[in-house]
Amino acid sequence: MAKLKGDVLVAQSGGPTAVINASACGVAQTCLRNKATFGRVLGATNGVLGVLHEELFDLGREGKAALDLMRRSPAAAVGSCRYKLDPQDPRDYERILEVFRAHGVRYFFYIGGNDSMDTADKVDKLARESGYELRVVGVPKTVDNDLACTDHCPGFGSVAKYLAASVMEAGRDTEALYTYDTCTIVESMGRNAGWIAAAGGLAARSPQDAPHLVYVPEIPFDPDRFVQDCKAVLDRHRRLFIVASEGLKTARGEYLSADKGAFGTDAFGHAQLGGVAEVLKALVEERVGVKARFNKPGTCQRSAMHFASRTDVDEAYLCGQDAVRRALEGVTGKMVSLVRKSNRPYRCETGLADLADVANGERPLPRSFMNKAGNHITKRMRDYAIPLIRGEAPVDIGRDGLPVYVRFKRRHLRKRCRPHQVR
Amino acid sequence: MAKLKGDVLVAQSGGPTAVINASACGVAQTCLRNKATFGRVLGATNGVLGVLHEELFDLGREGKAALDLMRRSPAAAVGSCRYKLDPQDPRDYERILEVFRAHGVRYFFYIGGNDSMDTADKVDKLARESGYELRVVGVPKTVDNDLACTDHCPGFGSVAKYLAASVMEAGRDTEALYTYDTCTIVESMGRNAGWIAAAGGLAARSPQDAPHLVYVPEIPFDPDRFVQDCKAVLDRHRRLFIVASEGLKTARGEYLSADKGAFGTDAFGHAQLGGVAEVLKALVEERVGVKARFNKPGTCQRSAMHFASRTDVDEAYLCGQDAVRRALEGVTGKMVSLVRKSNRPYRCETGLADLADVANGERPLPRSFMNKAGNHITKRMRDYAIPLIRGEAPVDIGRDGLPVYVRFKRRHLRKRCRPHQVR
Repeated sequence: MAKLKGDVLVAQSGGPTAVINASACGVAQTCLRNKATFGRVLGATNGVLGVLHEELFDLGREGKAALDLMRRSPAAAVGSCRYKLDPQDPRDYERILEVFRAHGVRYFFYIGGNDSMDTADKVDKLARESGYELRVVGVPKTVDNDLACTDHCPGFGSVAKYLAASVMEAGRDTEALYTYDTCTIVESMGRNAGWIAAAGGLAARSPQDAPHLVYVPEIPFDPDRFVQDCKAVLDRHRRLFIVASEGLKTARGEYLSADKGAFGTDAFGHAQLGGVAEVLKALVEERVGVKARFNKPGTCQRSAMHFASRTDVDEAYLCGQDAVRRALEGVTGKMVSLVRKSNRPYRCETGLADLADVANGERPLPRSFMNKAGNHITKRMRDYAIPLIRGEAPVDIGRDGLPVYVRFKRRHLRKRCRPHQVR
Repeated sequence: MAKLKGDVLVAQSGGPTAVINASACGVAQTCLRNKATFGRVLGATNGVLGVLHEELFDLGREGKAALDLMRRSPAAAVGSCRYKLDPQDPRDYERILEVFRAHGVRYFFYIGGNDSMDTADKVDKLARESGYELRVVGVPKTVDNDLACTDHCPGFGSVAKYLAASVMEAGRDTEALYTYDTCTIVESMGRNAGWIAAAGGLAARSPQDAPHLVYVPEIPFDPDRFVQDCKAVLDRHRRLFIVASEGLKTARGEYLSADKGAFGTDAFGHAQLGGVAEVLKALVEERVGVKARFNKPGTCQRSAMHFASRTDVDEAYLCGQDAVRRALEGVTGKMVSLVRKSNRPYRCETGLADLADVANGERPLPRSFMNKAGNHITKRMRDYAIPLIRGEAPVDIGRDGLPVYVRFKRRHLRKRCRPHQVR
């Protein structure tokens, strides 16, 4: 394989996580150490949108300290987006190649979920067709943990650790005051997959611990069963703690609570969720007859770097690092995956998956990770998830007692292409 | 002052905090080290209710390791309650003394807020009237930070640190995706006082940082001004991050959103809040015209031991320790207070306040801690709060990657009194 010299472009996409920056850092630092092959390491401001708008900046010029800090900073320091390219319309893909050519980009590392892998796949194929030598490697990222072809996704371990700890703490709060019957509900993220809600279940080391009940979107929600479940827990413990995914659906596949207003869908046409906690609170108060309150950590959960999983941060970095190593070997059109080699002791290596397979797949929570009643997790879920949440990753703390996170200057390079119309 | 020998009773009351256990630990460990004066150190299960029901247990028998762990555990390991004694009805107060006499309790340390200090005050006075030698010392506790006669309250520093970090992280999340105009709202706790919401303001080190707007109950909420504020921020930053207290009120003193249902009030007749975030979300979407989402950390915030303030944990312990020292000196009918001696460097000592003064006072957020427009904090708030959130207090982590918190066995002592009818 002839050595391909050229510039590198790294971009982040979709919902932020605690560790998407660790992956970008893994890419950038690995490339910057290999000056014989790589030229500049460019970032695209706000993912593929930054490429379309030709808003690129030189990550190397952000300085060593800023790059180091990126590894310990949540959200997306390079900038992310939710822009979805139209697979029927070649113009956006052609534009990407135009920008790549203009800036000498020969390596494209795209950190994201299945929509991003779809984009990366199409860019890779178009480059081949048009004879432009380009290596495209995807790096997995999603708190939802629902990407196909990988044992787990960077981002999940941290949200899982944070949510489980938060449930444990709010559970102790409820327990401290259980001088009357009460219900606390925590609404977790997870649009279609129950991985995050199931992670909340890890807080229950014993039956008296919170949560007593866990509900995931993969199992249709039945209000009558739910009311029965609640009453049974209250009979036994006099308190009730529930973790429920924002994506709960009825047996007819309808979201338990979908906002029908003007802002009811996001840029992908996905229904904007939220409100599951309110629906469950009303059910508990009206049909179970005890007072209910809810906590909704919302976007705090996916960006909670202050209690991230060391395993997750390290694996996220490793995925970025490994994407570069693979690209150097000539790999293109693939996503780096995580392959669990053993569980005790936990040992995980990287592998490769076809971008197209990731783009078109999804990985719901296996039914065996939930109990028969569909209202709590099983030992299989614990065995799967616990290795992913082990270890702490302390953040830098400023003199004001608060975390210090990176913010890049993002001095955009001079544009070399004509403006492009973005939908 | 003649040495008063006897048993000790420690009780916790009201809403849990990250550090109420650190205070109880300070009491218990200090007493257990002084065997010449103190007999058993008893805990009352669920605060004053545990005294009324004569549900007492020997903290010393929980073991040294459990007591050590209590210092690093959130919520209320001894058990808390929201039971309010009827000041017009002497029976509950008499009952408390009856139980104290029966078990030889000569020292009563009550950790709580102003309702608890009121109870402690009345017990102290009744003991004097009835010639039962008893020393009663209160230990301040409330995340709301609104107790009179003390510079700040143990519990506040930790919720402040956690909320500010969470706002910072969710702010980076919003920033990562600000490819279109959006609004994120964080609803903080704080029924009547804006201290916690104001602490969320600490996350903004620069104007572009979240939060851009902060709203507190002390300043009447005006929807028109709010809409103007939002539009101004969006014009400038294209994104909008708001921290709002659950206790926001209109100029007419009505809560912005009070649940009118069957569970609309708690045991004290306080209106149960929540829903401020939903009200603001609707206002932003309808009148500002951008999509809004909200995070509601709820009880997760007050029990977030995993990111507690070292200063807060240490001061909470110190207050417990100092309550014992003062009682040994003969003090009774007082609450230990925190007195800030200097701010740079931060130096804080303990003082004493009359229980009655604490019971009848309150300490709203000073107007000067908010800017003129009433929509963000000032440097005064920063100078006040930052010393209180400095330092980290790592928790014990188990092999499952999650915190380890104490749960006492609470083997109740044999009852010596006849049952008492509790309202």
